[in-house]
Amino acid sequence: MDRVYKKVELVGISAKSFEDAVNNAVEKASKTLHGMAWFEVSEQHGRISEGKVVEYQAVIKVAFKVD
Amino acid sequence: MDRVYKKVELVGISAKSFEDAVNNAVEKASKTLHGMAWFEVSEQHGRISEGKVVEYQAVIKVAFKVD
Amino acid sequence: MDRVYKKVELVGISAKSFEDAVNNAVEKASKTLHGMAWFEVSEQHGRISEGKVVEYQAVIKVAFKVD
Amino acid sequence: MDRVYKKVELVGISAKSFEDAVNNAVEKASKTLHGMAWFEVSEQHGRISEGKVVEYQAVIKVAFKVD
Amino acid sequence: MDRVYKKVELVGISAKSFEDAVNNAVEKASKTLHGMAWFEVSEQHGRISEGKVVEYQAVIKVAFKVD
Amino acid sequence: MDRVYKKVELVGISAKSFEDAVNNAVEKASKTLHGMAWFEVSEQHGRISEGKVVEYQAVIKVAFKVD
Amino acid sequence: MDRVYKKVELVGISAKSFEDAVNNAVEKASKTLHGMAWFEVSEQHGRISEGKVVEYQAVIKVAFKVD
Amino acid sequence: MDRVYKKVELVGISAKSFEDAVNNAVEKASKTLHGMAWFEVSEQHGRISEGKVVEYQAVIKVAFKVD
Amino acid sequence: MDRVYKKVELVGISAKSFEDAVNNAVEKASKTLHGMAWFEVSEQHGRISEGKVVEYQAVIKVAFKVD
Amino acid sequence: MDRVYKKVELVGISAKSFEDAVNNAVEKASKTLHGMAWFEVSEQHGRISEGKVVEYQAVIKVAFKVD
Amino acid sequence: MDRVYKKVELVGISAKSFEDAVNNAVEKASKTLHGMAWFEVSEQHGRISEGKVVEYQAVIKVAFKVD
Amino acid sequence: MDRVYKKVELVGISAKSFEDAVNNAVEKASKTLHGMAWFEVSEQHGRISEGKVVEYQAVIKVAFKVD
Repeated sequence: MDRVYKKVELVGISAKSFEDAVNNAVEKASKTLHGMAWFEVSEQHGRISEGKVVEYQAVIKVAFKVD
Repeated sequence: MDRVYKKVELVGISAKSFEDAVNNAVEKASKTLHGMAWFEVSEQHGRISEGKVVEYQAVIKVAFKVD
Repeated sequence: MDRVYKKVELVGISAKSFEDAVNNAVEKASKTLHGMAWFEVSEQHGRISEGKVVEYQAVIKVAFKVD
Repeated sequence: MDRVYKKVELVGISAKSFEDAVNNAVEKASKTLHGMAWFEVSEQHGRISEGKVVEYQAVIKVAFKVD
Repeated sequence: MDRVYKKVELVGISAKSFEDAVNNAVEKASKTLHGMAWFEVSEQHGRISEGKVVEYQAVIKVAFKVD
Repeated sequence: MDRVYKKVELVGISAKSFEDAVNNAVEKASKTLHGMAWFEVSEQHGRISEGKVVEYQAVIKVAFKVD
Repeated sequence: MDRVYKKVELVGISAKSFEDAVNNAVEKASKTLHGMAWFEVSEQHGRISEGKVVEYQAVIKVAFKVD
Repeated sequence: MDRVYKKVELVGISAKSFEDAVNNAVEKASKTLHGMAWFEVSEQHGRISEGKVVEYQAVIKVAFKVD
Repeated sequence: MDRVYKKVELVGISAKSFEDAVNNAVEKASKTLHGMAWFEVSEQHGRISEGKVVEYQAVIKVAFKVD
Repeated sequence: MDRVYKKVELVGISAKSFEDAVNNAVEKASKTLHGMAWFEVSEQHGRISEGKVVEYQAVIKVAFKVD
Repeated sequence: MDRVYKKVELVGISAKSFEDAVNNAVEKASKTLHGMAWFEVSEQHGRISEGKVVEYQAVIKVAFKVD
Repeated sequence: MDRVYKKVELVGISAKSFEDAVNNAVEKASKTLHGMAWFEVSEQHGRISEGKVVEYQAVIKVAFKVD
């Protein structure tokens, strides 16, 4: 019952969607973090170039269990 | 002009997208609520398992007309 | 280094997704604004009709360079 | 000392004022809720038609005692 | 379905009430903006002189349809 | 140019309106504070009794010049 | 995966502690709600009488599974 | 009905608990303030020394009736 | 008494300080806006290059009188 | 005077109280972090099972000195 | 360990910088308050005249020990 | 396009200004972090001693590219 989680804040980026941006951040984090349990979206923004959205950016907090 | 709306807070969940999570919550609510007029997203989070996003969770407020 | 940006707030609407709502707002803005550089999502809501989501609405701030 | 209150969120609407919008919501709620003790205004907005304010809308939380 | 709205932020002022302050801002805006659809109150403050409230100030966002 | 203001937080109450609640707080404060310059509304709530609004409560910050 | 939760807002009160106030609200809710899964504290306040804290009040949101 | 309250912000500190920190602040305030009616917790933090929590700090607003 | 102000949101940038970033935005705005009366800082951020802060960015709202 | 602190975000969990949840997080962190100086509570929530609170969860930021 | 602090809210003003505005408020407060320990910036704004920033205004909370 | 950033939260301190406090935090971070791209100010506070501001403290988030 006395487990502890740590949250780290990441910015994922995708040309397709906010969900894809979240996935990119989680996939990258999975290379160094184990025991990831949930994420929370804190901000959504993106880049515009020549009048078109070219990047969706999702700022997320990822929580993982501390051993 | 003197109509009144009530808002209820729901958490919809989907393996596919935040939009789908919203739809699941609205669909479930439609079984008992009539006159739903709009929704507002208050939070977006999700569940991660084995390094992958397995659930998108949308916390929404749904407003419906009070008879 | 001393460039200045202006932000305007827009509400984009789409029957498909929040990303599409953002795109609709940016596309409309591109007809009169030049030098758009980024957007920020401030609110997400939508319209429900007969128990189904019929519109996704994204409130965004669009930043563009002031000449 | 161990009484419990529940809060419900309502949107009252009036052509006259925000106070009247609050009253409309409370009056409607009084038909089904008993023991209402206080309200809190969370948002104030309204509708404009042909360049004039035609509706004041007050989003309130109403608290009532749970038996 | 793919209409777009723009929001502008205004400060209305009145010696009488917050509602009157909102109306003053909307009335002024109606001279240059068409298709205004709704407003949202973001702040309420005022000026005091010689121990009395002499001005009610309402900061509102006004949304209008972009052609 | 180097004047300093202090803000105090007050709760005004009225059976009539939020504006009247603000006025009651400012009038009471004027008995001990001099040089009041502006107020800001931070919260609006009220009391309900027997299904009717019986009190409007305005939480305000009042700023006055420090000698 | 497509389960839906509903959140209701409650105010629990206790003479002892905020935890006890949370428990009182949850215990009362358990008489009519089934499938409660988690709670979130949104506000903490209390009542003072004759210079002493006589009540701890916890405003919480309780989430339960919608069948 | 036209009573007025004033709120002051205090930081209470305790080695035991947040409730005790609230009590310490209220007790201290009771020496100079009369007619205290309620408190609201605005922040909770604390001090850590040699890897252990040694102080719980509760920032509260205390409201008292203005004569 | 019934004057109306409009607020626009700008991002000023400077290599020196946040104050300088505010000044750059106000100076640029002064070329097209008349009657500017006050500004409010909403965000402060900046750019880092090769381990050093190279830009201070101030997001401000500028209010000006509407004729 | 030019020391620097870093903040990390942790979720502590306890069956007993929010204070105990904070302590569990700090104790776990003390195994890898040195120079912890203070914590700030950002969220409080918990888990409910069979109608009873079974876990208090405190989300805290812990600040420690960077060498 | 059971010391208590009080916070008061001040608005400092300076023609030079936000830091100077903070200093002006603290200096003025030091004439009547003893044991001031820290300050927190809650808002930053300023006055514009003839297209130039003529005042930086810092709203701060100042905490001092209550004897 | 699919790069990922991580944000860490730091508290920089300076006897001179908030900008200097930001710089101190960034300079310290540059010893262990590479690819820092931007910072965001989340809080500004400071320490007072003998009636004078002796420290400016800037809480910032620093974002850097994850390889």
